[in-house]
Amino acid sequence: MIGIIMGSSSDAAIMKPAADILDLYKIPYEFTVISAHRSPQIMFDYANTALERGLKVIIAGAGGSAHLPGMVAAITTLPVIGVPVKSSNSLDGWDSLLSIVQMPNDIPVATVAVNGAHNAGLLAVQILATHDDRLMTMLKDAKLKNVEKVKAQQTSISLKA
Amino acid sequence: MIGIIMGSSSDAAIMKPAADILDLYKIPYEFTVISAHRSPQIMFDYANTALERGLKVIIAGAGGSAHLPGMVAAITTLPVIGVPVKSSNSLDGWDSLLSIVQMPNDIPVATVAVNGAHNAGLLAVQILATHDDRLMTMLKDAKLKNVEKVKAQQTSISLKA
Amino acid sequence: MIGIIMGSSSDAAIMKPAADILDLYKIPYEFTVISAHRSPQIMFDYANTALERGLKVIIAGAGGSAHLPGMVAAITTLPVIGVPVKSSNSLDGWDSLLSIVQMPNDIPVATVAVNGAHNAGLLAVQILATHDDRLMTMLKDAKLKNVEKVKAQQTSISLKA
Amino acid sequence: MIGIIMGSSSDAAIMKPAADILDLYKIPYEFTVISAHRSPQIMFDYANTALERGLKVIIAGAGGSAHLPGMVAAITTLPVIGVPVKSSNSLDGWDSLLSIVQMPNDIPVATVAVNGAHNAGLLAVQILATHDDRLMTMLKDAKLKNVEKVKAQQTSISLKA
Amino acid sequence: MIGIIMGSSSDAAIMKPAADILDLYKIPYEFTVISAHRSPQIMFDYANTALERGLKVIIAGAGGSAHLPGMVAAITTLPVIGVPVKSSNSLDGWDSLLSIVQMPNDIPVATVAVNGAHNAGLLAVQILATHDDRLMTMLKDAKLKNVEKVKAQQTSISLKA
Amino acid sequence: MIGIIMGSSSDAAIMKPAADILDLYKIPYEFTVISAHRSPQIMFDYANTALERGLKVIIAGAGGSAHLPGMVAAITTLPVIGVPVKSSNSLDGWDSLLSIVQMPNDIPVATVAVNGAHNAGLLAVQILATHDDRLMTMLKDAKLKNVEKVKAQQTSISLKA
Amino acid sequence: MIGIIMGSSSDAAIMKPAADILDLYKIPYEFTVISAHRSPQIMFDYANTALERGLKVIIAGAGGSAHLPGMVAAITTLPVIGVPVKSSNSLDGWDSLLSIVQMPNDIPVATVAVNGAHNAGLLAVQILATHDDRLMTMLKDAKLKNVEKVKAQQTSISLKA
Amino acid sequence: MIGIIMGSSSDAAIMKPAADILDLYKIPYEFTVISAHRSPQIMFDYANTALERGLKVIIAGAGGSAHLPGMVAAITTLPVIGVPVKSSNSLDGWDSLLSIVQMPNDIPVATVAVNGAHNAGLLAVQILATHDDRLMTMLKDAKLKNVEKVKAQQTSISLKA
Repeated sequence: MIGIIMGSSSDAAIMKPAADILDLYKIPYEFTVISAHRSPQIMFDYANTALERGLKVIIAGAGGSAHLPGMVAAITTLPVIGVPVKSSNSLDGWDSLLSIVQMPNDIPVATVAVNGAHNAGLLAVQILATHDDRLMTMLKDAKLKNVEKVKAQQTSISLKA
Repeated sequence: MIGIIMGSSSDAAIMKPAADILDLYKIPYEFTVISAHRSPQIMFDYANTALERGLKVIIAGAGGSAHLPGMVAAITTLPVIGVPVKSSNSLDGWDSLLSIVQMPNDIPVATVAVNGAHNAGLLAVQILATHDDRLMTMLKDAKLKNVEKVKAQQTSISLKA
Repeated sequence: MIGIIMGSSSDAAIMKPAADILDLYKIPYEFTVISAHRSPQIMFDYANTALERGLKVIIAGAGGSAHLPGMVAAITTLPVIGVPVKSSNSLDGWDSLLSIVQMPNDIPVATVAVNGAHNAGLLAVQILATHDDRLMTMLKDAKLKNVEKVKAQQTSISLKA
Repeated sequence: MIGIIMGSSSDAAIMKPAADILDLYKIPYEFTVISAHRSPQIMFDYANTALERGLKVIIAGAGGSAHLPGMVAAITTLPVIGVPVKSSNSLDGWDSLLSIVQMPNDIPVATVAVNGAHNAGLLAVQILATHDDRLMTMLKDAKLKNVEKVKAQQTSISLKA
Repeated sequence: MIGIIMGSSSDAAIMKPAADILDLYKIPYEFTVISAHRSPQIMFDYANTALERGLKVIIAGAGGSAHLPGMVAAITTLPVIGVPVKSSNSLDGWDSLLSIVQMPNDIPVATVAVNGAHNAGLLAVQILATHDDRLMTMLKDAKLKNVEKVKAQQTSISLKA
Repeated sequence: MIGIIMGSSSDAAIMKPAADILDLYKIPYEFTVISAHRSPQIMFDYANTALERGLKVIIAGAGGSAHLPGMVAAITTLPVIGVPVKSSNSLDGWDSLLSIVQMPNDIPVATVAVNGAHNAGLLAVQILATHDDRLMTMLKDAKLKNVEKVKAQQTSISLKA
Repeated sequence: MIGIIMGSSSDAAIMKPAADILDLYKIPYEFTVISAHRSPQIMFDYANTALERGLKVIIAGAGGSAHLPGMVAAITTLPVIGVPVKSSNSLDGWDSLLSIVQMPNDIPVATVAVNGAHNAGLLAVQILATHDDRLMTMLKDAKLKNVEKVKAQQTSISLKA
Repeated sequence: MIGIIMGSSSDAAIMKPAADILDLYKIPYEFTVISAHRSPQIMFDYANTALERGLKVIIAGAGGSAHLPGMVAAITTLPVIGVPVKSSNSLDGWDSLLSIVQMPNDIPVATVAVNGAHNAGLLAVQILATHDDRLMTMLKDAKLKNVEKVKAQQTSISLKA
């Protein structure tokens, strides 16, 4: 079970690709709003019970002064993946990125690219796959499919050029 | 009573000028380490009880992915002043500044300059002075002294030139 | 009484949320254009008489080389809240932010996020609430409502997912 | 088994804290130089055989146009943790950070802070701990020790203030 | 023969001007997709055989954590020209630029402006022209035509003013 | 008569080269501290009387949220040259530069490079020289001397190589 | 006579406000395309003959790697005002700004804001006004009109609020 | 014959590695000061005669508003390699980099990393090697030596760990 959380429902479209990846790999997940700023106690309880509720990895997206991933990581011992969200209020995503990636010693957040929820989902799969052969096989297949996609693009682009 | 808190004792030298200002204005304060990341429950409790313990303003300094000011502001209804600390681990203070100032709607943090603890102290005085004539008079005196300092610099620099 | 001032009438839409917050908290305010650059004497007089005219806090918004908040803070002893405005002429708000937040010692400006007038209004309320129980109670209620909003978003987003 | 690799032996001091963490948690690791740019075939082979050689996680550090973490992630299906190194040739670490974190879809790199090898080690432990109770217990203990450290700093700083 | 490669077919419109220049100078080229991240082995083979297949220069465009130009340059001894692509996922091109230009010693990439495929094509011509009088004469003619274009703009703009 | 002013006596060493240039060209000047923030009324009076006191150009240096050049330009009709000072409190001079150069319409500040007081002095000379043949001749001579300096460097560097 | 030059006719709309200001102040000017990069000899001749042709000030606008203002300033002894143009090819104007303002010692360029042609025109007027009472009087009138504009905005905004 | 030029003799230490590479590959070169700003006519003549004097490639280093590489490229049809120099006056090299790499269409500059003279030299070798088998063989050998260096570092670092 993976937890996908975000600071506001307005981040849902950006975070959706993480859920899509987990659907693809048939990994159960929950997808909900947990605001570090508007509901600190809910965030606290969420992070504090995540392990006992059976979560393996938490994916947290937030924008601007993005504190959700880091605060969840401060509370839980689970791996936390941070997705910097480039919202209309953010400074083009720079604030989101720095607020998430520059964590102090002892509290890591595995940060992906700005708006990189797709890769956050995939990273969660990779983490589970370290102890799940089915997933590792699927990941290997995906790498092969990536090659096929490049080959298909090579064909189509040659025709175009 | 003002609370001056910081993420680590290594920030103490940067945060000291806030205490110096409060000493000057004879305002009581507490000066302690409260880490949002290493002691989230202590931070939570500190922020949650700040009002009832008689604090009027909280000054919070932190560096890198600086979550302390914003998280305290998420929990308390007191004004929170944020001091972005330019630590050796920070990206020259840019991460500290953006992590503190770019707060989402509903959770303001009154941000001062990078390493601006002196001004954080003064801003706390100004807030108290809105309802304290003694402090307002002292603040006016300080403005007059600023003018004297400039005049003294004019004299000394003329001699030098 | 709160003063909400801005460098140009073109900033009015960005600054309006500060007035909306004060309306919500039933705090009187004035909302006007005071340009540090185009009307320096008016700015000077405004800042110089603000205290005696009964203002408690000044909220000042400006963009580009944004000098209004800092200059007003140079003249008055009242707390000044600065709103960096991201105008079409600004470098995506970076110039506005740095011009306002990086104030030298002795002249603090309580800076909020780029285009953060909503939080500027709220910060003004928090400052007044340090000596006004009605406002402090309302601020606590607002925090509870924030939690409700998150819970509502959790429900709606679960249905959507 | 964890692989800790870096682009040059000059990065060893920056990457050492990752090894220190793994020593602390009694997790075996290899610590070596693998340059994507100077030894692309060695890098290729390293990444290609990592899974079969029993590695669970790869920690890769690099500076400037830092391609090592991303290229290893392109080849292996294991989770790759990227450490942006702030070398004398880098633009204060900005180039290292962006070269590592802004990976395209399908090739995630779990990025930590600039020079954040300590957290890279800890993140590797967290990943293993998702399937290792001994490690999860140790991580919980570490969180408790973090609290004790904060309390100790509170005492010492009070004496100092 | 010049190789024009890009990380994805979505970069084709940005890279097309390089092909247009080579058409103009009647230099043969191949135009295809080679992803360092999705098809590392294809990229490896492409770079490894480029010289023996008769390529003289490789133009490589990529965005975000842009590793294609640098990895190709790591493998081949041919001059590699890098085009930082400003894609929707990139941080306005800053990540693309720094990922390409800040290469470590021993692995140069000749970097042009963000989205500067036109100049990448021209730089390839200049490289060939160091040993091809026909091309050098054409380049000189192009400089003369640039002057004519400026003169034409002077006339039209005078009429307009 | 040229006015050279700065926000603090700590900027004197940075601003000295402007005075040195004026000495070289035998142009009288005054060199003093005028703080927009600590002595706004003095700044106001200085700018307001500058024209009638016979000043022709004002050179103003300041760092951080640097408001002195822009505020002086708001008050006087004389040309104002702004020197962004890179002080220890500034964000490497970025705040100083943007606070000075990004002035709104109607209030120009002629901005030179960070710490560029030498060029500020020279620009003041160029402005005077538009109506002073002695100065224009000296400026032409200086251009010739620049060429001689380059030739001298060519000789010495050839020997060194 | 003022020279207004720009690197390309595509910059004409950005540079037009400089001409508008000069029209307003009844100052003759020429408005033309001079490309440092596409027509270096024309640029050279333009700068070299500017003084003898009676120009008093040159306003030069350019974008990206903007060399026109600095190169003209390298050749002429006249004051050169640089306008950083934010073109579609520029990095949001950052490259244009830094290419123009960070000139080395001995070659000043009076830099205005990004796209600040209006202020470039006004700065040219201020320079001429140091020796032209008619212009100085007009500049003083303009300052008074600025105040009137602010007052008008105050009225209209009060009605709106 | 390669031309290595720089804006000032103070850049010589930064540019020396380009000469060292050419010495290594036994390629003749000239190493001299050519300032676009202080000696524009010398720069003009240098660039204008470079081809007929037998130069094949020009390596140009400059800092701050770095115009030398771009101006030389505007005049000559030879490939020009630009080295952004991080001088004490530059904004940490950002201005140098952007002034050189963001060239407009038709005037390419092959830009290397900040202070990347070593790679500039190597890129010049690669350009010559497109038509010189001796050099191409040496470049291949250098790649093999790079691998040996990595292997040596692997051994030494294993001992150290």
